[in-house]
Amino acid sequence: MTKGRIAGEVRIVGAGLLGASIGLVLARNGVDVSLVDVSPTAVTLAVEYGAGRPASPTDNPTLIIVCVPPDVAADTIARELEAFPNAVVTDVTSVKEAISESLIARGADMARYVGSHPMAGRERGGAIAARADIFTGRAWILCADESTDPAAIRLVEDLATDCGATPVHLAAAEHDAAVALVSHVPQIVSSAVAASLIGASDDAVALAGGGLRDVTRVASSDPALWVQILSANAGPVADVLRGIRSNLDGVISALESGASAGAIATLMARGNSGVSRIPGKHGRSHRFAQILVIIDDRPGQLAALLTEIGSLGVNMEDLRLEHSPGAQVGFAEISVLPEAEERLVADLEARGWRIASEEA
Amino acid sequence: MTKGRIAGEVRIVGAGLLGASIGLVLARNGVDVSLVDVSPTAVTLAVEYGAGRPASPTDNPTLIIVCVPPDVAADTIARELEAFPNAVVTDVTSVKEAISESLIARGADMARYVGSHPMAGRERGGAIAARADIFTGRAWILCADESTDPAAIRLVEDLATDCGATPVHLAAAEHDAAVALVSHVPQIVSSAVAASLIGASDDAVALAGGGLRDVTRVASSDPALWVQILSANAGPVADVLRGIRSNLDGVISALESGASAGAIATLMARGNSGVSRIPGKHGRSHRFAQILVIIDDRPGQLAALLTEIGSLGVNMEDLRLEHSPGAQVGFAEISVLPEAEERLVADLEARGWRIASEEA
Repeated sequence: MTKGRIAGEVRIVGAGLLGASIGLVLARNGVDVSLVDVSPTAVTLAVEYGAGRPASPTDNPTLIIVCVPPDVAADTIARELEAFPNAVVTDVTSVKEAISESLIARGADMARYVGSHPMAGRERGGAIAARADIFTGRAWILCADESTDPAAIRLVEDLATDCGATPVHLAAAEHDAAVALVSHVPQIVSSAVAASLIGASDDAVALAGGGLRDVTRVASSDPALWVQILSANAGPVADVLRGIRSNLDGVISALESGASAGAIATLMARGNSGVSRIPGKHGRSHRFAQILVIIDDRPGQLAALLTEIGSLGVNMEDLRLEHSPGAQVGFAEISVLPEAEERLVADLEARGWRIASEEA
Repeated sequence: MTKGRIAGEVRIVGAGLLGASIGLVLARNGVDVSLVDVSPTAVTLAVEYGAGRPASPTDNPTLIIVCVPPDVAADTIARELEAFPNAVVTDVTSVKEAISESLIARGADMARYVGSHPMAGRERGGAIAARADIFTGRAWILCADESTDPAAIRLVEDLATDCGATPVHLAAAEHDAAVALVSHVPQIVSSAVAASLIGASDDAVALAGGGLRDVTRVASSDPALWVQILSANAGPVADVLRGIRSNLDGVISALESGASAGAIATLMARGNSGVSRIPGKHGRSHRFAQILVIIDDRPGQLAALLTEIGSLGVNMEDLRLEHSPGAQVGFAEISVLPEAEERLVADLEARGWRIASEEA
């Protein structure tokens, strides 16, 4: 008996952040977890962390989890399927169709392979960054098809559930198109906007407001990681990027022609429609009202504000902080349901808080 | 005597959000503020708010502040310079060079005109949204040149200071290039990424994480407002957009060729460099360490966390909230100085908080 759904012997190939984190979850549940990695040091570290034991030649796993970098994932999965003909094999790579096609081309036993992708944890940091709770509350995507054994699918669903994640089923091509859209392309566009700041004057970047900060936030991501991810999902990423380039082309032409109003209005209206599709907290798709509260920049002010909001019985849907260059005050942007806005503003002002209008 | 630096009679043309907000500041300081607007209702409302009195034929202002939409700004400024030959005239329009060129072409008295742009307050909402503190802690850009009377510049600096803003001097062309880079282009790019979500499946948008939310946040802005702003700054916006399109072209070609690693690595490294130029809190350009704390999604949890951080004597540099679809837990991403990270993680864990690894 274990404390989770996964009960048999589990083999984890690749003892980095994701592999060691999964090992921690399963080992704590009482599962017999064996670990293997091209780096013996990585295995030693993961074992010390409590993520399992070193693999041995007599292992007989029922589930194998491949947690290696994208560029060696297909090779590794094929090798494991051959070496352990009774085991179910899954992987955690963030692109799925290229791996599946590569396995089919090798004649791999696809009934026992379930590609998966937990939407959690940067694929870096190694075992030293491993934690049992990095999957908590995240989606864990499973990419099975008609050739997959239903029992294999259930086993990987159990793995996701044991890790605290929510299993989500998508075809491999749908997965790749989805992550291109919601993750890979925003990364590239953010980097492109940030790159345009390189030659800017100090005066110009000093005027950066919340809009620029938001758009360029992920531009600080690690290039080495993203080169592998983006290269492995080239087709879907290029598809989405071409659509965005076409939109930018339209605006550039309109700006150059001197008659840009229609093109800008159309793009912005379509942007309004697109952003309204992103689910809010708990999957709801509300548009929230934003209240901008001025806070003195000293410790405890924000905590005091949130305590006040809590005591007023108002549920805060989102919170964002902002500081202007050179100023000794900051702004807390509080998102609430539109119907709560008026009363909250009145109540906060009655308690001495200063409410500002929204920033340009 | 007034409570601020501005002492003489002030005329405000355009009693919308910005005009009425400036009127509130000055009137509270004891300045004689007269208001005029194409809409008599707007003047009545602003007067009721305490932003000044209706203009009269005997007014003799020393300072005129033009707060009208971009498409009528130059006409209005020229008319005011002629009607009041002893007054200094400024405006608050978010684009500057086109207005200046238009005034010069009309033979306006440029010694008495100081173009300005307070980086605060959406240009919408009308007098009903007016507040005396929307300029607090913001930059207020002044665009003077060698033809401007130094006394006129000092008067507009005093206006910015009275409003709680920081005066910043830029040439008109530098201002327009700067706002194209830090405000106008991020707006267009954000809209273009958000527009790509229109045709996406529900499954795909359900996977939206923090990266997509950040990049598309400003895509919910008002199209009507931005059509005027972007059209009036067409040249500088098109310049920056062409640079970004060229970067995207390079990545698309590389992805299509199947040899994308070099192009992606280069763009991302340049993105790293660019984003590091954006000043942090108080103008410092630190890279902060991020700590992701798991919080139960119930009222008071976040306030308790921040109170705890405050009691540990740690200065929080930034805070961002995140919720995954379908999950009953959320994540608070706390930014601190890198040297504070290790101890804060240890202290929070010792107090029972759960720290997660950073999200993909």
